Amino acid sequence: MNELKGAAIIGQSGGPTSVINASAAGVFIEALKQPNITRVYGAMHGIKGILNEEFYDINQEDMKELELLKTTPSSSIGSVRYKLKDVNVDDTDYKKLLEVFKKYNIRYFFYNGGNDSMDTCNKISKFFKNNDYKCFCMGVPKTIDNDLAITDHCPGYASAAKYVATSMMEIKCDATVYDTPIVCVVEIMGRNAGWLTAAAALASYKGMGPDLIYLPEIPFDLDKFYSDVKKKYEENNGKVLIAVSEGVKTKDGKYVPELVSDNIAADAFGHKQLGGTAQVLAEQLKNKLGVKVRAIEFSLLQRCAQHLASKVDVEEAFMAGSEAVKAAVSGVTDYMIGFKRIEKNGKYSCEYIKVPLAEVANAEKTVPLEWITKDGTGLTDDFINYALPLIQGDEKAPLEDGLPRFAKLKKILVNKL
Amino acid sequence: MNELKGAAIIGQSGGPTSVINASAAGVFIEALKQPNITRVYGAMHGIKGILNEEFYDINQEDMKELELLKTTPSSSIGSVRYKLKDVNVDDTDYKKLLEVFKKYNIRYFFYNGGNDSMDTCNKISKFFKNNDYKCFCMGVPKTIDNDLAITDHCPGYASAAKYVATSMMEIKCDATVYDTPIVCVVEIMGRNAGWLTAAAALASYKGMGPDLIYLPEIPFDLDKFYSDVKKKYEENNGKVLIAVSEGVKTKDGKYVPELVSDNIAADAFGHKQLGGTAQVLAEQLKNKLGVKVRAIEFSLLQRCAQHLASKVDVEEAFMAGSEAVKAAVSGVTDYMIGFKRIEKNGKYSCEYIKVPLAEVANAEKTVPLEWITKDGTGLTDDFINYALPLIQGDEKAPLEDGLPRFAKLKKILVNKL
Repeated sequence: MNELKGAAIIGQSGGPTSVINASAAGVFIEALKQPNITRVYGAMHGIKGILNEEFYDINQEDMKELELLKTTPSSSIGSVRYKLKDVNVDDTDYKKLLEVFKKYNIRYFFYNGGNDSMDTCNKISKFFKNNDYKCFCMGVPKTIDNDLAITDHCPGYASAAKYVATSMMEIKCDATVYDTPIVCVVEIMGRNAGWLTAAAALASYKGMGPDLIYLPEIPFDLDKFYSDVKKKYEENNGKVLIAVSEGVKTKDGKYVPELVSDNIAADAFGHKQLGGTAQVLAEQLKNKLGVKVRAIEFSLLQRCAQHLASKVDVEEAFMAGSEAVKAAVSGVTDYMIGFKRIEKNGKYSCEYIKVPLAEVANAEKTVPLEWITKDGTGLTDDFINYALPLIQGDEKAPLEDGLPRFAKLKKILVNKL
Repeated sequence: MNELKGAAIIGQSGGPTSVINASAAGVFIEALKQPNITRVYGAMHGIKGILNEEFYDINQEDMKELELLKTTPSSSIGSVRYKLKDVNVDDTDYKKLLEVFKKYNIRYFFYNGGNDSMDTCNKISKFFKNNDYKCFCMGVPKTIDNDLAITDHCPGYASAAKYVATSMMEIKCDATVYDTPIVCVVEIMGRNAGWLTAAAALASYKGMGPDLIYLPEIPFDLDKFYSDVKKKYEENNGKVLIAVSEGVKTKDGKYVPELVSDNIAADAFGHKQLGGTAQVLAEQLKNKLGVKVRAIEFSLLQRCAQHLASKVDVEEAFMAGSEAVKAAVSGVTDYMIGFKRIEKNGKYSCEYIKVPLAEVANAEKTVPLEWITKDGTGLTDDFINYALPLIQGDEKAPLEDGLPRFAKLKKILVNKL
């Protein structure tokens, strides 16, 4: 147990998830209990809010609303995409942060995000140490991309995966309803890691999923794609459902929209930014195979559909936050809370571990190639066994008027000193 | 009570909904109970299945799976878009239908769909009557568009509305998370009637919805749209959420994609079919106002997201099917089951009424203009009071492995005679 008394602050960073607020709730609720934490702050828009001395006074929030954060999607106190400069190039931000931390006597810092955020947290911690400012800095993981190193999986992934698998099953019901052929291409988030697109395989495992799945881990080949689709088209009476990651690229590193702009008229450039991967592929299939197509993009829905959150995910996300606080007050710093999978008698459980920030900062974990089927268009049972325990159970917001009742924070700004 | 003994057949037609199978379940389960109904058939792909003598033997299905149909999206026995010709022009199909009905002694005909389907049902019934074939023909309503005449609302609408409102609230959480401006345009189904787009106002009613809503009932004016968005952009610190019906058109009857193709380079024509209304509007806003934009299309998800089905909708859809059977066996023909809203002490309930097929065939009910706010970008309390009771309660498929367990029918084809 360390004896350092001071305020705690949490910042949320990067793209939202359905459960990032569950982690914030974990931090808030645990921090409010800790005698050594004198005040609990929520940084408005992550690191930017700290730089601007804009933070919410969490001590003034109602516990009922903090509990509701568990089932409120996105980042309630605001997120940010802000990359700190290399301290050796420009230490302005670092100095400002140190000044703010000192001024408000902030001794506990929790940063909730993906690998960029872990890098931010790590850099700040180092700067504080080099300047003899004692502060316990802990990372709280978050990403639908599931690409953080070392941890078995990341909070946010399971709920997005459950959304992808459930929606895929429903689309399968809908897209196959007529007796006419149709090829449906569904685009799923994930630029370099295909974890979320792979979740579509859970629907296939239930017999109601895509016929073809394309991950960024495997170089994308347009000709092979055509022939894959053609084969399935013939096998399945003209009905083909395809899941494709927004991040698939050729062996030359070209994304799908870039690929097409070389083959078709130059004026397509003007539209390139509009067309997603699914849309371009659907158009190509229509031209090449002369078939009816539909492109669907899950877009923001896949990362904010709290109504399909996995209970396992909500609970683990909350625990990641509360474990980070417990670790910090016991004197731990420079770690991110990670998950270790425990299987006892075939039953899944999760152990909370500490992962050095330096090891997750900017590292990226992709889907193991041996979990992808040889034809490059499906996932093996290893993936199913990995993902299935994570999407168990429902935990959605309570209903009010038939609609979700999300947390309503007072968001009282702390007076600037 | 009529004494005519014979088989019953049901066909599903038009675009799927989350609860069209609940209506089928209502027909199946009630028909299986009726002593005068000797056999229960499900037409494969609606009227086409009858013409081809392809129908499933529902008597061989397990009751458990028929019950699961209540929470299985889309049309399990297959849908169709097939318009019967005018009988005076070409009566081939009618003659074939009569032959099939006679051959299998089908005396009860249930057709589940929208206004086109009611027209089909009506035409068939008339032909049978003119040819002295006694058959009780009943329509079972279905449409997310909610545009059927006379009935207070339509099965399928409420669940789609609940999906739209819930997803809008979640998108609002997500799209406003950064401290940077963004305009988000969400496209919702409904070509001529704006009922489903109007459901976005339920999210606004909860304080978490779109800032601007555009229905097809009001002529769309691109200049007014720009100025509406600009105003909200300034008021809301650069964050604007817009709901737009795919069917909005100018006073000259031009849809949004057509509108734009006149203003920009002709080569855009090649892409027009790809770009939805939201995408085109988002692109226009980016060019005109120089703001960051995002276009989201709910696409198939809004009509097949059974996991967000309204309990009220599931129950009413089921009852519409079972009431149709009860009416037919009691001697009623040429009616569609409709809903009459009963409000007692502020509590909503629904009475099942009979609406003449002729009055719903090809008629279309749009959103009353007086329910649209004067500025043409919102809905009044009258709409909220109308829609809110319909989206109450959840009734989703049971979970198996964390994913929906939809009905698995045996689908045993009846031997052709």
